[in-house]
Amino acid sequence: MSKIASTFSRLVRFVPKSNPAKVLIGEPVDLQLDVGLALYQGKEVAVRPFSGSSVLSPGQVTDATETIARILSPLAQSEVGTIRCIGLNYASHAKEMALPIPDVPTLFMKPASSLADPWPVPTVLPKITQQDNTGDYESEMVIVIGRDAKDVPESEALDYVLGYTAANDVSSRTSQMNQSQWSFSKGFDGACPIGPVLVSAALLPNASKLQIRGLKNGKVMQDCPLTDLIFTVPQLISFLSQGTTLPAGTIILTGTPPGVGAAKNPKEFFKAGDEFAVELLPYVGTLINKIEHQS
Amino acid sequence: MSKIASTFSRLVRFVPKSNPAKVLIGEPVDLQLDVGLALYQGKEVAVRPFSGSSVLSPGQVTDATETIARILSPLAQSEVGTIRCIGLNYASHAKEMALPIPDVPTLFMKPASSLADPWPVPTVLPKITQQDNTGDYESEMVIVIGRDAKDVPESEALDYVLGYTAANDVSSRTSQMNQSQWSFSKGFDGACPIGPVLVSAALLPNASKLQIRGLKNGKVMQDCPLTDLIFTVPQLISFLSQGTTLPAGTIILTGTPPGVGAAKNPKEFFKAGDEFAVELLPYVGTLINKIEHQS
Repeated sequence: MSKIASTFSRLVRFVPKSNPAKVLIGEPVDLQLDVGLALYQGKEVAVRPFSGSSVLSPGQVTDATETIARILSPLAQSEVGTIRCIGLNYASHAKEMALPIPDVPTLFMKPASSLADPWPVPTVLPKITQQDNTGDYESEMVIVIGRDAKDVPESEALDYVLGYTAANDVSSRTSQMNQSQWSFSKGFDGACPIGPVLVSAALLPNASKLQIRGLKNGKVMQDCPLTDLIFTVPQLISFLSQGTTLPAGTIILTGTPPGVGAAKNPKEFFKAGDEFAVELLPYVGTLINKIEHQS
Repeated sequence: MSKIASTFSRLVRFVPKSNPAKVLIGEPVDLQLDVGLALYQGKEVAVRPFSGSSVLSPGQVTDATETIARILSPLAQSEVGTIRCIGLNYASHAKEMALPIPDVPTLFMKPASSLADPWPVPTVLPKITQQDNTGDYESEMVIVIGRDAKDVPESEALDYVLGYTAANDVSSRTSQMNQSQWSFSKGFDGACPIGPVLVSAALLPNASKLQIRGLKNGKVMQDCPLTDLIFTVPQLISFLSQGTTLPAGTIILTGTPPGVGAAKNPKEFFKAGDEFAVELLPYVGTLINKIEHQS
């Protein structure tokens, strides 16, 4: 086995201005651009489309140039399958919550139906979260698996990584803490926006070089280096693949750093109209979402 | 909305003796037969195949007759999506475990990759479960959703039910109890065998008429009427669909009655070679699995 040889360094999935009925994948022309932030600021983002249609088989980059009308999650719902999420994986977050460092990763799952696009598609809080008034954010780094993985030793785990992106693990805290409803409280439609860019493992061989920030209405709420992860990328893939096939396309949300709304004093939960940005640098850029209430 | 008008009363998915490369769906000719038990006893089971290939669009029954070479899970992995499971849903099981009756259903999830066929496909315990030596059974009734369901009131919930089958929620107890690893400890490949027969909601309008038993090597370990459910079928569908799409094909495992191996004194866990049978009567029949160890 060897590392996955991507045909891209950074990949976006998007609806092009040239044809609003189409979905394309491609490589941003400006390899340094924060695509999510640029689009939010109303800038034009040029992309070289690939010949293929799926992140898992992108084909080759073409000579055409397209402009993004609307950015999508880099993988589609039909590609991700059941989403894996790690519960407590930053040493400083465990300290903040006064919880012991876990011996093994804490796993919960979200259904594929929770996968969602970045802004301008709204992040809609369901009525039960509005009743609770405990809608919250969790900025997370995401591992994207590129080939079926089962019983993978840590030493070979990086051979299964296609790349990395960002996610907001949108949460309803009352439901979560009541009766251990993690999968329920984090599994609503739209509760897993990812993006804006999928960075290849070739461009980013070591995810611990990343820095993650979470900003609510422009204010920094979370700010942490990925060196703070309790369980590293190889450790997570090896643990989760024990006796279990992680099909190509599986995404793993790797946990959130300190500073979630539920840990603030007083607690700070989502209001309709809030803007939340997960910034993951270098390369991934800023995943922006606006909060709405289900009517 | 109205109830789903099935073209079947009992449905099996199977490999026919006439062509071992084919997968068919059909209706057993003998509508009273316990298909799982009959096959295990080496009897011939005749089936009238449907014109369609999926439980979700079975088409019409044809005049042909086929004999089952090997029975499969009534839905395929590609049809079920993320599997929903309820944690504690029998009043007598809560009493046995000295746990309070929950206010809301406790939800966890299994990946589609855990879905598995009945005997003769073995139920393989992964190495981590062998190390723990805490492999266990949970006999469960399964709801099969037949049309996309979201924000469904209890009064309309039965309009979304295609039918019912049985499952074994195969569990690794040490991993489960350590760090609340429910999704991990119950999500291994093969940890969700279902079958043998999908009974239509038309034939079984009220699932609380069922009686569930779990038998290990022929000895009755679990025996309970479905009237003991804390949360009924309409309550579960209404709760789980809040803000959340349950796509057609979704299966919901509804919890297990008293008598799991972990609750025995002394505890009784799986050994390689054990046979476990989930019997759900009337109509569904017996889901049989044989336990093997991953080598």
